[in-house]
Amino acid sequence: MARIAPLSGFPEWLPEGRAVESHILRTVAQVFELHGFVGIETRAVEPLEQLLSKGETSKEVYLLRRLQDDGPEQQVAGDKTLGLHFDLTVPFARYVLENAGHLAFPFKRYQIQKVWRGERPQDGRFREFTQADIDVVGSEELPFHFEVELPLVIAEAFAALQEIGLPPVRISVNNRKVAQGFYEGLGLADVEGVLRTIDKLDKIGPDAVAEALQRDNGANEEQARACLALASITGTDASVAERVLALGVRTPRLEEGLDELVRLVETAAARAPGVVVADLKIARGLDYYTGSVYETTLVGHEQLGSICSGGRYDSLASDGSHTYPGVGLSIGVSRLVSRLLAAGLSSPTRAIPTAVLVAVADEAHRGASDGIAAALRARDIPADVAPSAAKFGKQIRHADRRAIPFVWFPGVDGAADQVKDIRSGDQVDADAATWAPPAQDRWPVILPQTS
Amino acid sequence: MARIAPLSGFPEWLPEGRAVESHILRTVAQVFELHGFVGIETRAVEPLEQLLSKGETSKEVYLLRRLQDDGPEQQVAGDKTLGLHFDLTVPFARYVLENAGHLAFPFKRYQIQKVWRGERPQDGRFREFTQADIDVVGSEELPFHFEVELPLVIAEAFAALQEIGLPPVRISVNNRKVAQGFYEGLGLADVEGVLRTIDKLDKIGPDAVAEALQRDNGANEEQARACLALASITGTDASVAERVLALGVRTPRLEEGLDELVRLVETAAARAPGVVVADLKIARGLDYYTGSVYETTLVGHEQLGSICSGGRYDSLASDGSHTYPGVGLSIGVSRLVSRLLAAGLSSPTRAIPTAVLVAVADEAHRGASDGIAAALRARDIPADVAPSAAKFGKQIRHADRRAIPFVWFPGVDGAADQVKDIRSGDQVDADAATWAPPAQDRWPVILPQTS
Repeated sequence: MARIAPLSGFPEWLPEGRAVESHILRTVAQVFELHGFVGIETRAVEPLEQLLSKGETSKEVYLLRRLQDDGPEQQVAGDKTLGLHFDLTVPFARYVLENAGHLAFPFKRYQIQKVWRGERPQDGRFREFTQADIDVVGSEELPFHFEVELPLVIAEAFAALQEIGLPPVRISVNNRKVAQGFYEGLGLADVEGVLRTIDKLDKIGPDAVAEALQRDNGANEEQARACLALASITGTDASVAERVLALGVRTPRLEEGLDELVRLVETAAARAPGVVVADLKIARGLDYYTGSVYETTLVGHEQLGSICSGGRYDSLASDGSHTYPGVGLSIGVSRLVSRLLAAGLSSPTRAIPTAVLVAVADEAHRGASDGIAAALRARDIPADVAPSAAKFGKQIRHADRRAIPFVWFPGVDGAADQVKDIRSGDQVDADAATWAPPAQDRWPVILPQTS
Repeated sequence: MARIAPLSGFPEWLPEGRAVESHILRTVAQVFELHGFVGIETRAVEPLEQLLSKGETSKEVYLLRRLQDDGPEQQVAGDKTLGLHFDLTVPFARYVLENAGHLAFPFKRYQIQKVWRGERPQDGRFREFTQADIDVVGSEELPFHFEVELPLVIAEAFAALQEIGLPPVRISVNNRKVAQGFYEGLGLADVEGVLRTIDKLDKIGPDAVAEALQRDNGANEEQARACLALASITGTDASVAERVLALGVRTPRLEEGLDELVRLVETAAARAPGVVVADLKIARGLDYYTGSVYETTLVGHEQLGSICSGGRYDSLASDGSHTYPGVGLSIGVSRLVSRLLAAGLSSPTRAIPTAVLVAVADEAHRGASDGIAAALRARDIPADVAPSAAKFGKQIRHADRRAIPFVWFPGVDGAADQVKDIRSGDQVDADAATWAPPAQDRWPVILPQTS
């Protein structure tokens, strides 16, 4: 077999790391389901033409071809060029169009899957990674209140993860109508261009942005200064709107956007205090957002970038006669997990599920040990049987090396079975039909690590 | 957006179908964990050279290339040609070699992931499908008893699925040493060739197999007849060995294989009566099996083919200095789900998680409804809020169309809240801090469908 080496950009976790990831996935799925989101999966591939309908991401796509590509036969089979999806939004939009007749709208779905991007890998950026998305999609219309609810669902999911050591998050929100209305009111025509330039603020700083706005986006010095003044505003209440309006621009679109933004941050301040903040420099590059936009940072790990982003789109999917507006957010699970593991923030009490290792006195009595393990499993206690009838000291070491807390010794000649807590050394008589480990030992638990 | 049509061979489920699939995945994962298997995931891609190390599957591989493939840069980055994995065994073997220093052996893992094969799609054969694998891998050695335990874990997983309408399964087992020892004893040199020919028995019948054995595998008529006689033996106890030995061939390898085979079926008869059957025509085409081999059929759906196969391999993974023998089985989850759905055997009580829809009297009071839903969710009751403050009759229809069993009406002017079971029409006073739905209504449940 060829030399084995990790592939850059394709992360894999050891069992301990996967236990952390699985816990995160179960936790967010549980929160999503409590809010009525239904889980779906879509295929990993889409026709290239679908993937390219958002042109800017074309360079990131992995295309597929069959190793034994028999050209003519492939034509006959009607195969299209297929590529791996680079997000879960494009496939979801296609799924909605394909199945619209079978879905009830507004349709709330969550979707947890791998996605692939042919990017140059770097810290926190992978070529294969797991996303956990929620979206609500309406038929023809979608009330604004969903733009308030979705970031609150995400806030709840992240709050549930603080138990395992995730730092608090900050969800920064803005509204496209605010920026668009403001730029229009200023007399700037290239709204998309200005948005893209403002999006670079954190990267290149205000002076370079002011310069770029004048050089690339048709702004004069005063307009550029106004754009930067807008982008500097943050807050969690109605004063955000007052400070924007104090800049002297006023258009119906701007006022509508401010009204929505204030409703969002004020509701959020009541339901998830301290999490959601209006930050008017949040631009989100993608053209299709039309209302609220969201970015999420891990407090103390801001340089990791956004771990959950999204927004409102008025027509992500449309088949010509019907339009499906939506709002959604996408958690970058792999980025989150890789940081939790690298920073040593979370780890499981043990890597494997087994709570009890049933010892084997000699191979002739393996059946008795199998029976004990079966009795424990029947009562939902993860149990395994020692792989060989080695000396008991060696069997205990087998458990110890795996952090299995209990070793069970079958009774011989009518004596009672005994179970030993190998951490304390306590050993007591026990009956596999009634004994249970303490609740915190039954399954592995993910704990925050205090350093 | 381009015309939307399903892609042949890339199955996707509606929410109802995905609910069935999710239940199956949760159930088998739970059984695997109770037996001490740890869940891992591997990346979707492997270097082509790894994928081709099992030559016979080369035609099924999907290769990747980046849409904007910038040749020289790719060389610099050291990129290899990558392909999508076509099973979970090859990636697992690579994972074991890559991480051997961090794993404790025998290492028991389960792995539930999509795999891809560029095959011509047909009934029950997909280009993208989900597998659920369990394997135990030892370092240098692996005791035989694992060959008995693994099919019993699988039997337990399938037994748990009978609750949702899965028909009983039959696990057919054989042992490579039996066939190999028997053919050797007969004086046949081309053991692999004979195995591959015998593997076609169900497809082409005994006459054609006898002919092929003589034409292609160097057998004379008597040897061919003996091979067919061996292949016709089935049973669940020691009489299997007696009937084989009565054919007059006897070699140490044959006797070792028969001893193992009898231990397997007799232990299985005691622990999972009626499920595991020795069937000496089971060959499993793959060269690397060296001991027990397994195939599983759904009783009454035998034409679907095997839904769970595997076997023992003495050196699936080896890095030159260390060898890792293993035994594993792989459930074809997509094949199973597609049959359950197509035959109408299982379906969920509702497609979406929501147990309670909280009505909204008017948009000004949406906050009160949000608060009620939050109180229910805090006690693990999936709840959603009506998307619009339509007439109550319309809000009830919204719940009815989604099979949400309960609609909650917030009390007005100090009156108590009320909750209505929309199936019975019963409506009672209720407090969101204490009320709970009947247990069977809290979450969707998958039920067998009796037709």
